[in-house]
Amino acid sequence: MAAFDRLVALWSDVADLERAAAVLEWDQLVHMPAGGVAARGEQLGTLRRLAHERLTCAELAQALAAAEASSDLDELQRAYLRVARRVHDREAKVPARLVEEMAKASTDGYVAWVQAREQADFASFAPVLRRLIHLSGSYADAVGHAGQRYDALLGVHEPGLRTDRIRQMFAELRTALVPLIAQIAERPPLSAALFHQPLDEAGQWRAGERAITAFGYDWRRGRQDRSVHPFSTSFGPGDCRITTRLQRDDFGVGFFATLHEAGHAMYEQGLPEAWRRGPLGQASSTGVHESQSRLWENAVGRSRPFWEHFLPIVRECLPGDWQGASPEAAYRAANVVRPGLIRVEADEVTYNLHVALRFELELGLLSGDLPLDHLPAAWNDGMAVALGVRPGTDRDGCLQDVHWSGGSFGYFPSYTLGNVLAAQWMSQADQALGSVQRIG
Amino acid sequence: MAAFDRLVALWSDVADLERAAAVLEWDQLVHMPAGGVAARGEQLGTLRRLAHERLTCAELAQALAAAEASSDLDELQRAYLRVARRVHDREAKVPARLVEEMAKASTDGYVAWVQAREQADFASFAPVLRRLIHLSGSYADAVGHAGQRYDALLGVHEPGLRTDRIRQMFAELRTALVPLIAQIAERPPLSAALFHQPLDEAGQWRAGERAITAFGYDWRRGRQDRSVHPFSTSFGPGDCRITTRLQRDDFGVGFFATLHEAGHAMYEQGLPEAWRRGPLGQASSTGVHESQSRLWENAVGRSRPFWEHFLPIVRECLPGDWQGASPEAAYRAANVVRPGLIRVEADEVTYNLHVALRFELELGLLSGDLPLDHLPAAWNDGMAVALGVRPGTDRDGCLQDVHWSGGSFGYFPSYTLGNVLAAQWMSQADQALGSVQRIG
Repeated sequence: MAAFDRLVALWSDVADLERAAAVLEWDQLVHMPAGGVAARGEQLGTLRRLAHERLTCAELAQALAAAEASSDLDELQRAYLRVARRVHDREAKVPARLVEEMAKASTDGYVAWVQAREQADFASFAPVLRRLIHLSGSYADAVGHAGQRYDALLGVHEPGLRTDRIRQMFAELRTALVPLIAQIAERPPLSAALFHQPLDEAGQWRAGERAITAFGYDWRRGRQDRSVHPFSTSFGPGDCRITTRLQRDDFGVGFFATLHEAGHAMYEQGLPEAWRRGPLGQASSTGVHESQSRLWENAVGRSRPFWEHFLPIVRECLPGDWQGASPEAAYRAANVVRPGLIRVEADEVTYNLHVALRFELELGLLSGDLPLDHLPAAWNDGMAVALGVRPGTDRDGCLQDVHWSGGSFGYFPSYTLGNVLAAQWMSQADQALGSVQRIG
Repeated sequence: MAAFDRLVALWSDVADLERAAAVLEWDQLVHMPAGGVAARGEQLGTLRRLAHERLTCAELAQALAAAEASSDLDELQRAYLRVARRVHDREAKVPARLVEEMAKASTDGYVAWVQAREQADFASFAPVLRRLIHLSGSYADAVGHAGQRYDALLGVHEPGLRTDRIRQMFAELRTALVPLIAQIAERPPLSAALFHQPLDEAGQWRAGERAITAFGYDWRRGRQDRSVHPFSTSFGPGDCRITTRLQRDDFGVGFFATLHEAGHAMYEQGLPEAWRRGPLGQASSTGVHESQSRLWENAVGRSRPFWEHFLPIVRECLPGDWQGASPEAAYRAANVVRPGLIRVEADEVTYNLHVALRFELELGLLSGDLPLDHLPAAWNDGMAVALGVRPGTDRDGCLQDVHWSGGSFGYFPSYTLGNVLAAQWMSQADQALGSVQRIG
């Protein structure tokens, strides 16, 4: 027991440094003035390097080994050690300097991405992206893999999952989705007119607040701000924040982003407070995390029962605008299926094809099979093949997502894993609780 | 040179950890939801402890000694070593656990203070304040002093300055101020009516923004938010933030707080970027810092030339409200002298008596001569003696300031030092540049 407690104390420092870094990142994305970039990169680099140093130091390694040799541990403590061992052994292989370089490159990358996206200028983003790909490759090689770098990056998000299994999942989904999209295209299109009218942004904000409050998002342990790209982050179960963006003439953009991020945040709010400074205080996988965001966004937020209940509340938030609307009209507007350019605005049916494309492109960038200069064209061609639409600018193409700018490769498949898991949770809930969904 | 560079690299980690802690504190005061308190205290405790650990580790001590033995240093590098040596030797005497305990106690203290202040409930604040006084005493004893604990705390803010000198300064100021206040009281009072009318808060906010923009506050390297107690903080010269509070029926509350905090922030924005990760990137003393805030707030912001220039701009920000006002009326409203209860709202003449009282009380709390339970009464009696006013509740008495809640003892004298220095700067500017002040 003494060894286990010593491990917990040492790991607490690591967790605190990582949470502190998360606060600095939240601030950078939500509030930081432009002049703060250089110093913030240094600060994040130092925090990440020190967290890594302490995670991989001899003292912690010894405490971990000693704790594993203890005989009087309960089930949770043994689970703690399993996760701790996995994370420790992975990170022990990564040089500290690489960790710091990645943190700095992420800060630079985000800044370069925001500007490049605004100006639809891939060329200005390419050098920093090249560096991020290089660093991610070095990370994968350091962690180790059986020939497939992507396995190592995927493993950070989805412990034990292999690239081949992901490829198979996307193949299965394509088999079902491509004909489904074609079938839907033959039907008369649903109208999204209700969502596509100029709507007061403060009213949209309130509608989002009302919905996630009803879902159970705890405002005493969170807050919502605006940012370029919606995201959620957690500094412990007591402080799980979300951001959204609003578009005056597209209700769905902000509203569903709010539901999505609240799904993430509620998962984090539900993690055990007592374990907040260690591996058991972390999500079990990114896909499980996404299953919660996609569940609330789609399985709940786009369901008929939701709109039957929620339409009068939106009316209160947007007085005047939706007076004539029926729940059925809102339900239909929320479920228009139409191949489009932007992943985060995609409907449930086309969404996974957006993700599949990113997965293929990431594989190519990491293995070197896809030269970076070809990325914009490969993206556009991929969209044309998968969904029959072609971005007019890189802003609507390969510059649309924040992930790569932060050096996050191997994350995208988790979105689709989340969708699959969410469907399974919902189906299970249906069986266990009676017809929860009642989607007609 | 190699030794100096090694020292700079090691000190950069310390600086980054301290800056990161400052970001977490800013967030705590401006945005953090209530549920985040416990984890935030842990995170700050860890950051402060690790910063302290690295500042006082053998490797840094060796690099410092080796750098001092180098013969080829320039003047700035020698200055760096002087400050580094002073800070290092002081902190090396403080146990790491005490640093962490102080950080945690500060977080708890702030939370307890906000609530106690709101409810004017000193009793609920007393236990945590007792702990903070105890920890500050332990810190002073660890750092060392010649019998006067306050010397050690004062030295953190004002290197080399002694309690006796501060006592003498206040005695001199009292000698001049007490009769001056009496003299002013005999004259017909100035009218502050212009400031004391209901004014749109957004307009007040804009007026503050316009003024500090004209002063030279660089928004690309800063931002302003609202908080309970106005403050400024810096994460490097590229990111120097301020906060203010607004009161609908008292223009001066928000406006002069904005000028004051911008003075602090402009000083930080002016520190050398190249040295941002080391001792030369820090203010030379708290008093010098305050001299900048008090200079812009008072010597500039309450001057007749300022109001001659600025009145039309306030009119633009508050359309309709100030149409009939003359610059003279604004100048007079900004310079009403009237003994009051609240330090941050005090005029220039009575201000230093507020500070003198806090200094005396701090001395007593630290030495043990003033039992904590007597603090509210001692405060109220002190106000009655110094200024002839008596707080009706502790909210307007000993609960009004944030400082003690964060364990900050020995800070208050710096305000008065700042006033004295500001007067000296302004007088020097007058001589050097011709009549800058023209205060009639």
